[in-house]
This record gives sequence, structure tokens and C-alpha cells, in this order.
Amino acid sequence: MIGGRLTSDPNRSSLGLLPSGPDPVGEWLVHRQPPGPYIGRTQLESKRAGRRYASFPRGLVPFSSRMADSTWSLHPQLERDSVAVGELSLSHVRAMNDASYPWLILVPRHAGAVEIIDLDGEQQADLMDEIALLSRVLKDVTACDKLNVAAIGNVVPQLHVHIVARRRSDAAWPRPVWGAAPAQAYEPAALDQFIARIRGEVAFG
Amino acid sequence: MIGGRLTSDPNRSSLGLLPSGPDPVGEWLVHRQPPGPYIGRTQLESKRAGRRYASFPRGLVPFSSRMADSTWSLHPQLERDSVAVGELSLSHVRAMNDASYPWLILVPRHAGAVEIIDLDGEQQADLMDEIALLSRVLKDVTACDKLNVAAIGNVVPQLHVHIVARRRSDAAWPRPVWGAAPAQAYEPAALDQFIARIRGEVAFG
Repeated sequence: MIGGRLTSDPNRSSLGLLPSGPDPVGEWLVHRQPPGPYIGRTQLESKRAGRRYASFPRGLVPFSSRMADSTWSLHPQLERDSVAVGELSLSHVRAMNDASYPWLILVPRHAGAVEIIDLDGEQQADLMDEIALLSRVLKDVTACDKLNVAAIGNVVPQLHVHIVARRRSDAAWPRPVWGAAPAQAYEPAALDQFIARIRGEVAFG
Repeated sequence: MIGGRLTSDPNRSSLGLLPSGPDPVGEWLVHRQPPGPYIGRTQLESKRAGRRYASFPRGLVPFSSRMADSTWSLHPQLERDSVAVGELSLSHVRAMNDASYPWLILVPRHAGAVEIIDLDGEQQADLMDEIALLSRVLKDVTACDKLNVAAIGNVVPQLHVHIVARRRSDAAWPRPVWGAAPAQAYEPAALDQFIARIRGEVAFG
């Protein structure tokens, strides 16, 4: 899908950039190469990952081409409450700045989407793949007791999916985390470390 | 997928039942025919619905063949708290007996599943399709302000996905419904009416 989009991207053609070429405008983001352990774990993912990497043997993917919807922008409250982690095929990925729970957020880059059903069928399938990908990574990185996955959006209407690693010993257990207690901001180094561990497992764009 | 499963189902062959035949053992459940408005709305669904109905032109699908996992059984707490609505390809569908919110629950019939990532890729895709299907139906039936979709499972570990119709005027808004207040049981007639409206929109197995 991404591969298809790239080959028809007029910006790429007009810049004359090649996958194996240099990075004159600094717009290429480096993928880990070879693809990380979470690319290709399921049949669906390996098909997609294959397409994704096929056009870019050195694992270089232009960030701009991954923006499915150029009119999309992040809701200010999500920007305040969380920190950017990376880009997946459909979604912008963020880490919630709440040291109480390891907590990722997927935000599909589709302007105006409020509900999952505001995405088309292919985007819904991508969303499920990205939920599964980050769920596996978060579970492995945290060795949590339970994952909580939710699209709520009663306060911030922009479609976003929470993936929260829960422990039986955490502050809100067994209640959901939403509205349980004010966020406890991370020490900056601890948040950086959490994000680095996630980035170490996922080939973000 | 269902079509494929049916043609290779030894029970069906050994019973000698044909799609257009009678219902000698009472195990056929009648689908609304033609398929309801929510079958075939998206490309993915219409492909699946096509396959699903192709083998059964009169819309008869044996319930037993839809049980993906014969060792699966419903968790007792889900059984206590909610009422059966119908069967989809992957999931058993229930209505939460809480008059405060129109609230459906999808329970994938896959024994031992706790997390979404305990399902394989195809089951995850089916789950997303079923989430989308019930989301559209619940939104249309209730004209709600927001849908809340969540797989939490901190109390009941059996994998289940909540789809809750929220109104800005409801008891918990804007907080999530889980743990907000004890369930308010429906008047029996009101619960029957809610379930009938859902069944009127979905071709359950």
C-alpha cells in the first residue's frame, strides 16, 4: 500500500530521489534494517511489510508519503498529554505522559475521524493490525498482566485508540485508567527510556 | 470463510442436509432474507457476505458450524450481566442488562482468548468487521452522541469487546461507563425491545 503510494508520489518524482540515494532534504526517516521482530509475525503483517519494504531495500521511507491525509493534524489536548513515538502506516503513535501506566495511543491520520466507523474498511484493517502490533510490543516490553484497548473519545473527539499496560499492582486496578486519577508526569529520562524501548521493537516510519 | 467451513463440515455431510432442504433437527437458524442493510455496506463486508450467503441461497446457516471452537463457553459473569442477542462469524453477541446505556458486547468464541492478540490475524480482521458492524447498528438504532469501544477485561478475563452508545446526557458522561455506577436492570419489555431492534438490523447466525 505504502509502496504503491510512493511510486505515484509526484513529490518524490520531482525531487528525483531514489530509495538508495542520499537524503538531501532530510525528509527520509531511517527504518531499522532488517525489519524488526514485530514485522512479519503474522501472515497479514508480513504481506504488508513485504510490500512496504520492497520499494525501499535500504529501509528508507519518506515520512511525508506516509501522511494519508494532509489536512489531518493532532488534537491539541493529545499533543499536551502525550509525546510522539513514531508513525505507522495509518496512525501517529504517542506515549501518554503518565508514569502510572505504560500507555500508548494510536491516532489515525484521517482528518475528521471521530469513530472507528469513520474509517473505511482498509483503514479499519490497518487499525486492527496496528493495535495488534503495539499490543504485542507493549506486552513484551512491560510484561504486564493485562492490556486495555479502547477508543472512547468522550473528551477528545479526534479518533484515538488507547493501549494501556495494566498491572494488578497499579494505581487503578481493576478499574479502567480513564478518570481514575490525574496523570503523574514521568521523569524526563524515564519517559525517554520507555519510548526508546518501544522504538527498539517497531520499525516506525 | 463460513462458506468454506460449511462445505468441509463433516456433520453437515453426514446429516445429508442441503441449504434448500428442510430443518429436520431444528438446528438451522433463519437469517433475514434478503441480507439486511448492514451486510455489504463496505467492500470487505460485501466480499464476506457474498461468500457467506453464496452457499445458502435461502439464508439458512447451521448454528453449530458457526462455533469456531467447540471448547469455548461463555464466562459466568458475562452470562449473569448480559443477555444473548445472536451469533456473528467470530463472536457471540450480548446486550448488557444496564438500562443506563445501550450496550452490546462481542465475545469471540475462541477458548482461552484473553487479549485481542490471542486471536490470529484472520480472527482479528473478523473482530474488527464485527466491531464496525455493531457500531453502525448501535449508532443508527440509538442516534447516540458517541460510541465507546473497548476490550478491558480486568475483572472478566475472557476476551470481550464492549460497544457502548453514549449520550451527553447519560449518567456517566463524559467518564467511561465501567465502574461508574452499578448497572440499572432494564424493565424486561424494554430490554426485549432493544434486542429486537438490534436483531432487526443484523443477519445473525
